[in-house]
Amino acid sequence: MALTFWYEFSSSYSYLSAMRIDAAAEAAGVQLVWQPFLLGPIFKEAGYDGSPNLVSPHKAAYMWADIGRRAAHRGIPFVQPAVFPQDSVRAARAALGVEAVHRAAFSRAVFGQVFGHGADISDPVALGEAADEVGLDAQSVMARAAAPKVKQALFAAVDAARGHGIFGAPSFVTGDGTLFWGDDRLADALAWEKSGTLALDR
Amino acid sequence: MALTFWYEFSSSYSYLSAMRIDAAAEAAGVQLVWQPFLLGPIFKEAGYDGSPNLVSPHKAAYMWADIGRRAAHRGIPFVQPAVFPQDSVRAARAALGVEAVHRAAFSRAVFGQVFGHGADISDPVALGEAADEVGLDAQSVMARAAAPKVKQALFAAVDAARGHGIFGAPSFVTGDGTLFWGDDRLADALAWEKSGTLALDR
Repeated sequence: MALTFWYEFSSSYSYLSAMRIDAAAEAAGVQLVWQPFLLGPIFKEAGYDGSPNLVSPHKAAYMWADIGRRAAHRGIPFVQPAVFPQDSVRAARAALGVEAVHRAAFSRAVFGQVFGHGADISDPVALGEAADEVGLDAQSVMARAAAPKVKQALFAAVDAARGHGIFGAPSFVTGDGTLFWGDDRLADALAWEKSGTLALDR
Repeated sequence: MALTFWYEFSSSYSYLSAMRIDAAAEAAGVQLVWQPFLLGPIFKEAGYDGSPNLVSPHKAAYMWADIGRRAAHRGIPFVQPAVFPQDSVRAARAALGVEAVHRAAFSRAVFGQVFGHGADISDPVALGEAADEVGLDAQSVMARAAAPKVKQALFAAVDAARGHGIFGAPSFVTGDGTLFWGDDRLADALAWEKSGTLALDR
């Protein structure tokens, strides 16, 4: 049994989870699977134009303020990227293409490019820097990302996400198939995976 | 200084906050103002048809599952109302019309009608039962709800909500004007009001 962490590189709240989930899962004694996917097709099917967080200027302003406060509180860097949402297809393929043992570290580095440095990860240079940062060969990461079986794996991931009822990110799916949505549900997802209950209330 | 609790009777997550906010604020030593308002006009301006939680079937299913889990965990009753979202105009007027000292108790009773019993609070009978439950005279509550100055106060509340950048409910606005959105931000809003920081992380 394991908790699956479904993340999208263009998702600001996925960034918040990515930067703390390994430590949180270890503290809870829960096994974790990092699973990149794409929200773009799922948002399109729901009728959103871009991101549900940009539906109104008030909601967008709140999201950036909220994330800035939470990042500061947790001591992680945060920059509002000039491009949002971003085309994250190449980044998701790259994360799926690296060996599983490198996926978490590489994914954190990609998130750091977007929300720590404000870079645009549709740019291969930004992805290459993420690879460098964690000691992977940028050229081979890019080559693997372009492989047909990796593209296929990303389509399959989006289909699997739909199958779990996923409509946003981050999402967490426990071993018994229960879905939790949002960085603020991480403690609940871990508690559910471990003992079938929610975390103590806040 | 006080924390203002902005709530909408048709909002399922407002119900979760309403049932615990008095105890939480008292434990934190924070003064609280209960402020009913309407999301309908604000959602309409953002282009939503009904409720953002109904944008996709997956999101709607998740919301009801999430609220059911949280209500069970907190030991409060929960029934998915047959009518959702509901026309909450009369209920909001009634809550604004009662004396301030009765507002919290009456509002909890109204929320209990919707999400504890599954009633439709566009029905004056359900509102009358809420009044009875907390020892208020149902007829006089209805009469006050229909007064022009109460209707005017509700328009003013929606305008004030817009002024705070409110786009959903529950929302919490601290004395320094900082906005927090969602039942899962209650602990943060209380900590911010008290000491200008977020609550310890979860």
